[in-house]
Amino acid sequence: MTTAETPSLKSYCLDVAERAHRASRQLSTLSTEVKNRWLLQSADALLQHEAEIQKTNTLDLQAAAGFGLTDAEVDRLRLTSDRIAAIAKGLREIAALPDPIGQVIEGFRRPNGLQIIKRRVPLGVVFFIYESRPNVTADAAAICVKSGNAVILRGGKEAAHSSAAIVEILNKTAAEVGLPADAVQLVSTADRDAVGHFLGMHELIDVTIPRGGESLIRRVASEATMPVIKHYDGNCHVYVDRDANLDQAVEIAVNSKCHRMGVCNACESLLVHRDVADTFLPQIAAALAQHDVEIVGDPQTCQRVPAASAATEADWSTEYLGPKISVRVVDDLESAIEHINRYGSHHTDAIVTKDLAASERFTDAIDSAAVMVNASTRFNDGGEFGLGAEIGISTDKFHARGPCGLTELTSYKYVVNGQGQVRS
Amino acid sequence: MTTAETPSLKSYCLDVAERAHRASRQLSTLSTEVKNRWLLQSADALLQHEAEIQKTNTLDLQAAAGFGLTDAEVDRLRLTSDRIAAIAKGLREIAALPDPIGQVIEGFRRPNGLQIIKRRVPLGVVFFIYESRPNVTADAAAICVKSGNAVILRGGKEAAHSSAAIVEILNKTAAEVGLPADAVQLVSTADRDAVGHFLGMHELIDVTIPRGGESLIRRVASEATMPVIKHYDGNCHVYVDRDANLDQAVEIAVNSKCHRMGVCNACESLLVHRDVADTFLPQIAAALAQHDVEIVGDPQTCQRVPAASAATEADWSTEYLGPKISVRVVDDLESAIEHINRYGSHHTDAIVTKDLAASERFTDAIDSAAVMVNASTRFNDGGEFGLGAEIGISTDKFHARGPCGLTELTSYKYVVNGQGQVRS
Repeated sequence: MTTAETPSLKSYCLDVAERAHRASRQLSTLSTEVKNRWLLQSADALLQHEAEIQKTNTLDLQAAAGFGLTDAEVDRLRLTSDRIAAIAKGLREIAALPDPIGQVIEGFRRPNGLQIIKRRVPLGVVFFIYESRPNVTADAAAICVKSGNAVILRGGKEAAHSSAAIVEILNKTAAEVGLPADAVQLVSTADRDAVGHFLGMHELIDVTIPRGGESLIRRVASEATMPVIKHYDGNCHVYVDRDANLDQAVEIAVNSKCHRMGVCNACESLLVHRDVADTFLPQIAAALAQHDVEIVGDPQTCQRVPAASAATEADWSTEYLGPKISVRVVDDLESAIEHINRYGSHHTDAIVTKDLAASERFTDAIDSAAVMVNASTRFNDGGEFGLGAEIGISTDKFHARGPCGLTELTSYKYVVNGQGQVRS
Repeated sequence: MTTAETPSLKSYCLDVAERAHRASRQLSTLSTEVKNRWLLQSADALLQHEAEIQKTNTLDLQAAAGFGLTDAEVDRLRLTSDRIAAIAKGLREIAALPDPIGQVIEGFRRPNGLQIIKRRVPLGVVFFIYESRPNVTADAAAICVKSGNAVILRGGKEAAHSSAAIVEILNKTAAEVGLPADAVQLVSTADRDAVGHFLGMHELIDVTIPRGGESLIRRVASEATMPVIKHYDGNCHVYVDRDANLDQAVEIAVNSKCHRMGVCNACESLLVHRDVADTFLPQIAAALAQHDVEIVGDPQTCQRVPAASAATEADWSTEYLGPKISVRVVDDLESAIEHINRYGSHHTDAIVTKDLAASERFTDAIDSAAVMVNASTRFNDGGEFGLGAEIGISTDKFHARGPCGLTELTSYKYVVNGQGQVRS
């Protein structure tokens, strides 16, 4: 772990970024074998040092009340035996994934004999800002290093001790296997200005990935001088088409909304074709009532669902992240598409339909990272997509969209092999 | 062409961006057939209206002196018959390229039966800022629209009349073939503040591409609130290894430096392994002298090349864009790599060698968009790479690196087809 021995905050940050930059140069050509050995030995070391990690974790748990954490938040902070085992398992899973670096994306020979290869390379240095769950520390470090990047970790202060203990183990293993010492650095100061300093260093840091509340992410996106992989929010929709299997629609809407309410790919808004509103709305209202989900709706919904209250214009843009949903009756497929593209956050939107043309039109016209047909919005996830690991979900169209795994942390270079060719 | 009828500059810019945004929605699902018909009919229309275009071009040529253009710059502004024919030919070539939109990048089925397809989609709206050559107007419009994007063109004021005439023809053809009217818009005001307004509109504009001098590009990169595809400069190197074929090295270095001196992929700096310095330096000095290229060098170079003067530290970072080159003798391959990664602009760097290990180490370790082995740096170019069309060359690692053609102006979405799957 890096310590703040340098005179000022800014020079401390600069030193961290420069170390990361130098480490990234070495990492870019490091063999898969060394990276995997680091992952596997780190997994072993985490298990061996379980008792010490838990002891350190106690310091965070004791401090939690002072940070005003809720019981649920304190629980997420706790590193039980099972959770440490899960972290170790996560590292092993990342070791088992194919190394994206060196992969040839394309290769061809030009008429003049030049052989051109487009080869995957790391981005360089990742600045990762995240909230308090200490397991994310190990996970993010593993994903970044496996994809050949150095990482600067800025974790939540609530998990500071636990994250430091984990990074110490990762770094000790790094020294043993020959991974650059500064491949993984944890920012050791809680000073909020440190983030601002790092966000200005676009010549040393290649990408910033913020994870957390929308206000944090907006701050990072507006201050960052380098590219940012992010999503602000997840106002996800389920649209129940005229030709939907309504039983399936209930199941998909309930799963999308209720499977886990506090996450970005949970459904926040339900659109219902007017031709099925009479039948479907009472069904879904009853099903959502079982999960204590409050309904706000447009006048047509409120007419059919006595428990619903009137939605405001602001509701259509709101990500509730809890037991509340907005519901609107729409005239047709095109109105649904217009509503979603206007109010949604381009994250995940689903249609339930048996009509092939409706499905095709919806997937073509919806401008979102993932468009689901007859499936829950909850499937927009690196694990569910089979990426093996995920550092975030992007709603941007630039560079990476949707779940971001190892490949999304890479760039490419063109390698051109000639036999003396010059341009004429 | 859009005219500035709106009350204030800002509302004019907002109107242009909103039109572009709406047009981009339509363009994203427009058939390849309509886009190609627009390209082909526009090519015909440009030829048919050749006389009018040339008449309008005269206005720019007459105004050129007032802008203080050099004779060479005035010449580049001139739309001769041949140049108009070349523009039309360029549009036909872009029509002949495969449409990237709708392309399936990846597709697979998950164990739970979900079929996941990663499908190419347009970025949306491109804000393109460029200098005075009017042929770029047609070229950029064609590349953006073929890749399903709407484009806002901000051309140099020196070519304002010619660009307007070309865009008028493109828009007239758009109306005929059913392309959205605002697919191509030319910013009609010369007010420099307009650029600042557009750069703030990240919710309407998806990417900005600036082309021109380094100061313009630095301004755009620092002000833009959306991603930027760019390169600042091209400080490109040729490294002559101990095991180089020295005749080939002379040819490659001369071609890299002298084929066209004012371009970003021209060589600005030559590194020579000390073991071949005695033989090679007099040869290359003689060859460069024939092209009137001035040499600045380190002490070891100056010892061997009487005509060379001493290079300053600043020379190693300088892109001359003219008849001057910096030359340094290096101890070994690793010193060459270190020099290039430190002083270069990560654009294009070449090694001349017969040694396989040296070639592999160089291509691995050099952190540039294109790394050439035994070939001229001048080959880093969309046309030479076979992309068919190029809107710029990126030295960034994010999204697109190297020459940017149609594919680099796209993003993707995940389309997930299920049969009622929910998450458990």
